[in-house]
Amino acid sequence: MKRPETFDHFEAAWRPRVEAELERLLPAGEAPVGQVQEAMRYAVLEGGKRLRALGVLAAAQAVGGDPATALVPAGAVEVLHAYSLVHDDLPAMDDDDLRRGRPTVHRAFGEATAILVGDALLTLAFELLGRLPELAGVPEGVALACVRDLAQAAGSGGLVGGQAADLDAEHLEPTPALLQTIHAGKTGALFGAALRLGARVGEAAPDRVEALGRFGQELGHAFQIVDDLLDVEGDPTVLGKAAQKDAGRRKLTYPRLYGVEAARHMAREQVERALPLLEGLDAEVLRGLAERVLDRVR
Amino acid sequence: MKRPETFDHFEAAWRPRVEAELERLLPAGEAPVGQVQEAMRYAVLEGGKRLRALGVLAAAQAVGGDPATALVPAGAVEVLHAYSLVHDDLPAMDDDDLRRGRPTVHRAFGEATAILVGDALLTLAFELLGRLPELAGVPEGVALACVRDLAQAAGSGGLVGGQAADLDAEHLEPTPALLQTIHAGKTGALFGAALRLGARVGEAAPDRVEALGRFGQELGHAFQIVDDLLDVEGDPTVLGKAAQKDAGRRKLTYPRLYGVEAARHMAREQVERALPLLEGLDAEVLRGLAERVLDRVR
Repeated sequence: MKRPETFDHFEAAWRPRVEAELERLLPAGEAPVGQVQEAMRYAVLEGGKRLRALGVLAAAQAVGGDPATALVPAGAVEVLHAYSLVHDDLPAMDDDDLRRGRPTVHRAFGEATAILVGDALLTLAFELLGRLPELAGVPEGVALACVRDLAQAAGSGGLVGGQAADLDAEHLEPTPALLQTIHAGKTGALFGAALRLGARVGEAAPDRVEALGRFGQELGHAFQIVDDLLDVEGDPTVLGKAAQKDAGRRKLTYPRLYGVEAARHMAREQVERALPLLEGLDAEVLRGLAERVLDRVR
Repeated sequence: MKRPETFDHFEAAWRPRVEAELERLLPAGEAPVGQVQEAMRYAVLEGGKRLRALGVLAAAQAVGGDPATALVPAGAVEVLHAYSLVHDDLPAMDDDDLRRGRPTVHRAFGEATAILVGDALLTLAFELLGRLPELAGVPEGVALACVRDLAQAAGSGGLVGGQAADLDAEHLEPTPALLQTIHAGKTGALFGAALRLGARVGEAAPDRVEALGRFGQELGHAFQIVDDLLDVEGDPTVLGKAAQKDAGRRKLTYPRLYGVEAARHMAREQVERALPLLEGLDAEVLRGLAERVLDRVR
């Protein structure tokens, strides 16, 4: 197969395969646990941009691997991302009613089911990585390294830690260091893991895995700055979720701390500082992914 | 070291080491995510019976392995069990105020933190298994099999599925088949995984892993029947949590469906039917664990 050279081509070729893989990997919804499994499918399928999954696939390709081998880890990353959205939307957390243009899981299925759906999705992400040898012919040691990477990114030192700092921020002094911690955890960690997983299943050398992981971390940080900007300036009908919510919650964001124009500039700087990490790689698609992260409107 | 021969001796020797291992494996609680990590420690440390952890260690010993090698998977199983309690106690779930004689995590730290603590503990369990080669010298393939076992036990086909069926039960027809599904998922799955993990790190042959997993599944099922009985007859000051809650919630339980005496008889039958699975093993401690499960008062 001829390699697509731009991110748009890459996305057109691979996003449908990510969707098909997610459809295949999610449990089917049999009684008596049918409602939870049905709600798991609702939470994951349809409407996601799949930028993290595409990051996994693009990283695999950038190190000379076959993106098809990376479809299962890409699915695991999207499933884990979906869990974090389901729990983040809960009434006790951000209390959101709308996500990807539809009612959030707790609005559609109830709060207890939403808690269980998040738990089941988080667990499923690790089950999929545990089954990588069987599902994608990945060596056991590589699969186990993927488990470690994803767990470290998702845990209290990563995603959960970022969410916790985000919720606490209204009680804490709004410093640049705290803002950095929030963004690095909330979004940087999982983008970093996405690129690490892609590099690993592409059989990259350890220093390549590190470099791509750091690039992903910076890219995720920029993604979160843009997310904060979209909350200020975005169109809810395009976003598929409410906007203008951060200010009312006294969230600590880049626009709040630095203003809109400076924040926009900082997102681009964050990406540009990270680009040298891609040197020596066939990384046109990853550079295109970075542009998409900066220019996105949802 | 001379092997302790009864479960009481085994418990006296190993339970303190389980506690020390949990203390060591949990993150230390640094700012700005200190509150989540402090609450993780609160949720896991002190007060647990550690029967699942002791099941991991006893299974490792029963197949000729060293229980010390099984301390990390034992810790992972307890950490995962603690997550399930934290989320199960939430207001949207069972809404409990007391656990192990202290306020539940959401009562002590707030609901948002309790959701995040559960998420972080679930994630930590898989991180620990991912680090088994480094932490305990376990081969990568064995560690990855532990990841699969624990994820399958914890997900929508196991623990989460059991919780979901439990919550739905008030709307469903109270049949023996539904009751079986609830108990197999809620408690059977994780006890089954506990014994499988112990057998795996003890380097048991696959048929031994299966047999011990099935024994653990049956033992967990009996554990849940006894749990239902303790809700009817137990002393809250000994239990460390409220009793007499199932009836008010219209929970589907063995005492409700069959009566107290029959339920007690069924718990013992469940264990006795499972004992042949231990044939050919050095399983005195596991038999003692089964007696403890039946005779426990908390």
